[in-house]
Amino acid sequence: MVRETEIAQVLCMKEGTAENSYSKTAYTQQRQILSMSKSLRENVIREFYRMEHPTTLCIADLGCSSSDQNCLSGVLYGLIETIDKARREFGHGGPQEYHICLNDLPGNDFNTVFRSVTSFKEKLKQEMGDDYGHCFVNGVPGSFYGRLFPTNSLHFVHSSASLHWLSQVPEEIEENKRNIYMAKTSPTKVINSYYEQFTKDFSMFLRCRSKEVVAGGKMVLTLPGRQNNDPCYSKDSAYMWEYLAKVLNDMVSEGYVEEEKLNTFNIPIYTPSPSELEYLVAKEGSFALNDVHTFKVSSWDSNDDHKFGCSIDGTNRDDTMNLQASCMRAVAESLISSHFGEAIIDEVFRRYKEIVLALLAKEKTVLTNVTISLTRRERG
Amino acid sequence: MVRETEIAQVLCMKEGTAENSYSKTAYTQQRQILSMSKSLRENVIREFYRMEHPTTLCIADLGCSSSDQNCLSGVLYGLIETIDKARREFGHGGPQEYHICLNDLPGNDFNTVFRSVTSFKEKLKQEMGDDYGHCFVNGVPGSFYGRLFPTNSLHFVHSSASLHWLSQVPEEIEENKRNIYMAKTSPTKVINSYYEQFTKDFSMFLRCRSKEVVAGGKMVLTLPGRQNNDPCYSKDSAYMWEYLAKVLNDMVSEGYVEEEKLNTFNIPIYTPSPSELEYLVAKEGSFALNDVHTFKVSSWDSNDDHKFGCSIDGTNRDDTMNLQASCMRAVAESLISSHFGEAIIDEVFRRYKEIVLALLAKEKTVLTNVTISLTRRERG
Repeated sequence: MVRETEIAQVLCMKEGTAENSYSKTAYTQQRQILSMSKSLRENVIREFYRMEHPTTLCIADLGCSSSDQNCLSGVLYGLIETIDKARREFGHGGPQEYHICLNDLPGNDFNTVFRSVTSFKEKLKQEMGDDYGHCFVNGVPGSFYGRLFPTNSLHFVHSSASLHWLSQVPEEIEENKRNIYMAKTSPTKVINSYYEQFTKDFSMFLRCRSKEVVAGGKMVLTLPGRQNNDPCYSKDSAYMWEYLAKVLNDMVSEGYVEEEKLNTFNIPIYTPSPSELEYLVAKEGSFALNDVHTFKVSSWDSNDDHKFGCSIDGTNRDDTMNLQASCMRAVAESLISSHFGEAIIDEVFRRYKEIVLALLAKEKTVLTNVTISLTRRERG
Repeated sequence: MVRETEIAQVLCMKEGTAENSYSKTAYTQQRQILSMSKSLRENVIREFYRMEHPTTLCIADLGCSSSDQNCLSGVLYGLIETIDKARREFGHGGPQEYHICLNDLPGNDFNTVFRSVTSFKEKLKQEMGDDYGHCFVNGVPGSFYGRLFPTNSLHFVHSSASLHWLSQVPEEIEENKRNIYMAKTSPTKVINSYYEQFTKDFSMFLRCRSKEVVAGGKMVLTLPGRQNNDPCYSKDSAYMWEYLAKVLNDMVSEGYVEEEKLNTFNIPIYTPSPSELEYLVAKEGSFALNDVHTFKVSSWDSNDDHKFGCSIDGTNRDDTMNLQASCMRAVAESLISSHFGEAIIDEVFRRYKEIVLALLAKEKTVLTNVTISLTRRERG
């Protein structure tokens, strides 16, 4: 069983800006997701700023990864631009200070993020004028399932594509043999263990943030989820892990991988339904739930991209497959290599790409995401 | 001429934990310096805490580099331990929150620092008990000659061995041919330009910090300096650059390096005298100067180490030379390779080590350091 500290050590996206690294490969999919949650996110911060206008507005991005395009120049630029417009519109006076906190696990490649901070600040000045204020960018290494920030220090928390990662592989799922996630053939006990681990982790997340977010402060959280309450509904989010399970099972049959190794390998992820999230927020009690949105992004077909306002110029189907296979690799490589050893990695992802190509010629698949918007209640 | 943004890009200590990297090589010398300033630093923060006891105590280390031994487990551990003792002694009540901000240029190896944060927090819990409080560690990439932190957010600022780095090579020092720093043979105009650049940079440092440090907040700053007012007194701090200049001049004579290249190479460093610092602090006006200490550390002879309470077990003279040559390399390599190209690096430092060995067999050299302690005045 993999414990929390071990997950934090193992789970890291690939460093740097090389071809397979997370910062490039996750770009396309994440860009779609962030584009879908953009208007909600920016409306929420605008509304907060209309009511309050702190000298220093503190914004945290939790699970920022090392992708500049998604994090600094994507989400955070949009948030600051929104406030800057609102500041002029509402006549909130002089320059605004922005305190931007970028969080991820200590193994994240913060060096790559930090090297884009100077150009990010220059862009803010160029686009909004010298009088926009000051932007202070911090990196905050640590698990968001523990305390990360001082008491009452945050005004706005954003997280995208991170909260589905559990703090550890659920306990008592030894019966999940030859599956690597909640699959159609997983025993009920395994499904329950996954749900219990998510319950524990997500509640801890809310409890920690409840100390850190000021009363009236906002959180907008997006994570891969499900539309209905069947946790193994494979057309939603789990299918990509099922393809990976198929690859590993094939490799067991052919003698490349020990069966015992596969039997003890499980991915620490849970993709909740909107009603599960609603229930856990209400149960923890510190935050009021304002909005729940479910939306789908096309994971594979670049022809759909224009629907999300982010067409990928000159990208054909093959390129998209390559991107998606690299993306899966960037996410899963550290987990697989720490469990099975590095020797099988190239073969695993060669086969994964083949399966994806073959299966998706037949059917179309989409990724479901859930966005929730929360307000920190007054402390009673 | 090298401009500020270029210096910020070029000037970075070597990444990682390999043999030549800054985190290992600078350890010995820095440990001596930090040991000498320890009691002043800890008395100052204890006194601050006796008067004020903010819910979250915010401490910044400016120019932290990637050395865990010096930064987190050295200075910051000592500061938190001091507060924890004072908290129990003064009966300041419940757990204390510590907000630790580690600053360096964006090119610094923050990844290495961040990977030691988890064990640092575990050590705090083990040594001080679970009820010590919470410690939040941030990385803050950027030049301390600009704003880095929100207004009124810092209680205690520490910096060691960083403020002697100028933001750029001084202007109008074309006449400093074949010297690479303020040498005995440098024209007066060159010396003045160096002093003017330091004046400009140090005043900017104070101006930026004056916005960020709360009234009554403290700064303890240590930097290599001089004991007297002759900026070229080579037995103080400049000598190590003169040895490097000798190496480069020899290589020009032997045709390895173009003379023109050497003529345009200058190190962006200034080592001030105590009275220069006093003058600049008074002139800027935001901070009251409480203390000025000058002290010397032996740069080369490990036999002296016991004097500073930090003997290096089993280290002989040769090992010390190797360490010092690696240390110089860790500091100067990026500057030299960006100006002269990477090809000459190994030869430069092979010769540097030879010179150091030969010269130091004859004479003993010490490094002068100046520590000043400042209090932010009430805003008028």
